[in-house]
Amino acid sequence: MNEEIKALQEEILNLIENKKLQDLKRILSEINPADIALILDEIDEKDLPVVFRILPKELAAEVFAYMESDSQEFLISKFNDKELKSVLDELFIDDTVDIIEEMPASVVKRILSQTDAATRKVINQLLAYPDDSAGSIMNTEYIDLKKTMTVSDAFERIRRRGVDSEIIYTCYVTDARRRLLGIVSVRDLLLNAPDAIIEDIMEENVIFANTLDNKESVAAMFEKYDYMAIPVVDNENRLIGIVTVDDAIDVIQEAATEDIEKMAAISPTDKPYLKTGVFSTFKSRIFWLMILMISATFTGAIISSFEEKLTFVPALIAFIPMLMNTAGNGGSQSSVTVIRALSLGDVEFSDIFRVIWKELRVALVCSVALSVVNFAKMYLIDYLIFHNFDPGRQIEEILVVSITLFIAIIVAKVVGSVLPIIAKKLGADPAVMASPFITTIVDAVSLIVYFNVAVLILNI
Amino acid sequence: MNEEIKALQEEILNLIENKKLQDLKRILSEINPADIALILDEIDEKDLPVVFRILPKELAAEVFAYMESDSQEFLISKFNDKELKSVLDELFIDDTVDIIEEMPASVVKRILSQTDAATRKVINQLLAYPDDSAGSIMNTEYIDLKKTMTVSDAFERIRRRGVDSEIIYTCYVTDARRRLLGIVSVRDLLLNAPDAIIEDIMEENVIFANTLDNKESVAAMFEKYDYMAIPVVDNENRLIGIVTVDDAIDVIQEAATEDIEKMAAISPTDKPYLKTGVFSTFKSRIFWLMILMISATFTGAIISSFEEKLTFVPALIAFIPMLMNTAGNGGSQSSVTVIRALSLGDVEFSDIFRVIWKELRVALVCSVALSVVNFAKMYLIDYLIFHNFDPGRQIEEILVVSITLFIAIIVAKVVGSVLPIIAKKLGADPAVMASPFITTIVDAVSLIVYFNVAVLILNI
Repeated sequence: MNEEIKALQEEILNLIENKKLQDLKRILSEINPADIALILDEIDEKDLPVVFRILPKELAAEVFAYMESDSQEFLISKFNDKELKSVLDELFIDDTVDIIEEMPASVVKRILSQTDAATRKVINQLLAYPDDSAGSIMNTEYIDLKKTMTVSDAFERIRRRGVDSEIIYTCYVTDARRRLLGIVSVRDLLLNAPDAIIEDIMEENVIFANTLDNKESVAAMFEKYDYMAIPVVDNENRLIGIVTVDDAIDVIQEAATEDIEKMAAISPTDKPYLKTGVFSTFKSRIFWLMILMISATFTGAIISSFEEKLTFVPALIAFIPMLMNTAGNGGSQSSVTVIRALSLGDVEFSDIFRVIWKELRVALVCSVALSVVNFAKMYLIDYLIFHNFDPGRQIEEILVVSITLFIAIIVAKVVGSVLPIIAKKLGADPAVMASPFITTIVDAVSLIVYFNVAVLILNI
Repeated sequence: MNEEIKALQEEILNLIENKKLQDLKRILSEINPADIALILDEIDEKDLPVVFRILPKELAAEVFAYMESDSQEFLISKFNDKELKSVLDELFIDDTVDIIEEMPASVVKRILSQTDAATRKVINQLLAYPDDSAGSIMNTEYIDLKKTMTVSDAFERIRRRGVDSEIIYTCYVTDARRRLLGIVSVRDLLLNAPDAIIEDIMEENVIFANTLDNKESVAAMFEKYDYMAIPVVDNENRLIGIVTVDDAIDVIQEAATEDIEKMAAISPTDKPYLKTGVFSTFKSRIFWLMILMISATFTGAIISSFEEKLTFVPALIAFIPMLMNTAGNGGSQSSVTVIRALSLGDVEFSDIFRVIWKELRVALVCSVALSVVNFAKMYLIDYLIFHNFDPGRQIEEILVVSITLFIAIIVAKVVGSVLPIIAKKLGADPAVMASPFITTIVDAVSLIVYFNVAVLILNI
């Protein structure tokens, strides 16, 4: 919340306290609905109904749609049936569905009882689409035209239906069975004569989605084609709804947050950070922490099995963290890059050999650079200044570390880039293959390489 | 590239080879410009001009805007001046500026020589805005109205200017000095009588950005307010351009990719993964790998300084990786969550104590759970089954590991959540404070705690 909105909130709280409802009404009418919702989410619950009832009907519904689900639930509990109905009547159906999805069963029942049968039917249809499908984010209100209409018929229809439609600037031309034939933009309508026939000016190459398409891939279509809305059809090609660009933006942000969370070994949550309870945050984090802690048993076992030999070369112990971290960082750089490229559609399974070939070359250059710098640093600092190695085989020990670094980085980068692609092919989530998971594998590999190189070079 | 587009590409290559240009023209007219660009980016360079010259003028410019800069540069080199001018005339100015930003100086000169003086002036203005500002992504073409106009005057103006405007559905009402007074949507125009006066129907509470605002914060406005376009004004409140939602989506995706890259210790690149050369990828990765490798010297030094004592309790060495990884994972979970919340505007500097308080409680629950499970696992598996500890003080050694885990997780989570917030306050990039950086700090802290707890409990 920025300074300007905080100041407004202060002012509003003041007006409530002093019961200056006329001033309150005036101020609220000057604030954007999204900002009013932000302010209402933060004020004391007892003041919520007072402020809300001051808002004009249409604005009230818009503000309601923007509010957090906790506040929505509280308000619904304070509404009488008439008030609830009046808010619901003004809401777009997709917003109603979003609200219903967050409410407990008893509230859902009350909401459904205040909607008419036709709306209830649409709501139930929308609720039935899988959570991650285009159907779950689409809007069922749009302007449909017939191909035999004229431009002025079209404007007439927009004027009649327009108030209720979230997007009126693209109209969809359908046949008698509601099959999608083409689209006409209001721009086309404005630039053509009033008696032009829709069929002659409509665009027939329409980009559309299926109700069951993944919502992230539909959001990606917006990125690619720069549209304001994309029509959604069912398996019989009948137009069912539209997805609008504002919903696509939400999907894009959600997807990025989810990927980021998974890459950091967090199970995704869907609430803003400060609104998530301590226990929910704990639950979203403990699963992977536990798994990764227990899987680190392997690295422990590897060290234990070399323990005896390590006592001959204690100097090598100090480099275990550096080797594991550097290889781990190298691996997670590759995995995170590939995971993001998979999300954005820049890389697919068929690219796997191009990816391996590229990562191999990058890894080789990185390995050489890191090993050389490491050798120089160990020689100059650890050996010449701190005399940190075992007498008589200082150079050999430095070599063991540098060679291990060289091999471990290459393995880490190739494993890091390939695992996410394979995970996706197998239907698993590539983001889960990110840093912490790769780190566990890379740690084990680095240690095995380290100890074997040591045995080989130092003859221990 | 999906299967459908691959099939189209095959077909197009076939038609080129057999010189069936009429069929080629027909097929191209049925494909979306963004998809044509995708296909052209992949075909052999020598075929590019042939295909491109077949496209109708307006479509050609649209396809050109969607292409990769390598292909654009190649095509420009093949264009004669007349062809270049014809493409430039059809492009939106913001697209021209995007293209110019990617071209070498000689090509830029050629482009500028083919544009008229007025356009050249606007291009130079746009090029002068900082890379991350609203000015750098805005479009200077929009519909402006005067407040004294009627609705039918407005439609007349839209019809006259509409063809050239990327967004015609929101019109901006300005005064004689181009200062922004209000907005009117085409929806408002359609729903009002032809003789209604703009001043009476315009919305005066306009959300706008400044040319020098950060482009990510402008993109966030789209997320919050669900607009199609946001007007951009200069410091004197004069309307300079508009940012459209399609550009905002690109900014949102770019910002998420950048954050993800920085979190994985990669310097951001702006090309798709497979289009980035091996050396560029190397450059974007080696800096942090090197820094983190060298900073791991500290952990090595800590181990070295305890080396002598460690030889008394060799069993403890095996748990170093587990302790460092678990604390590192815990810390990066917190830092990544907070970094994302900062990006999305859910957390600000003033929330720092709420964040610390929340992370402390989450950390406490996580620590207890992990330490208890670790104690049980070490007792049952490492001690009872593998007899992995030093005789006479098995329980003490297990306690050392479990207590260290407890403390390290709490430190890691608090440090991980606080550092990004402080970094942002100091004007640094919070994302750089993510996993690898936190890991280095947490590693050092974990080792110091580990060895001190060991000295204390085991009296070594």
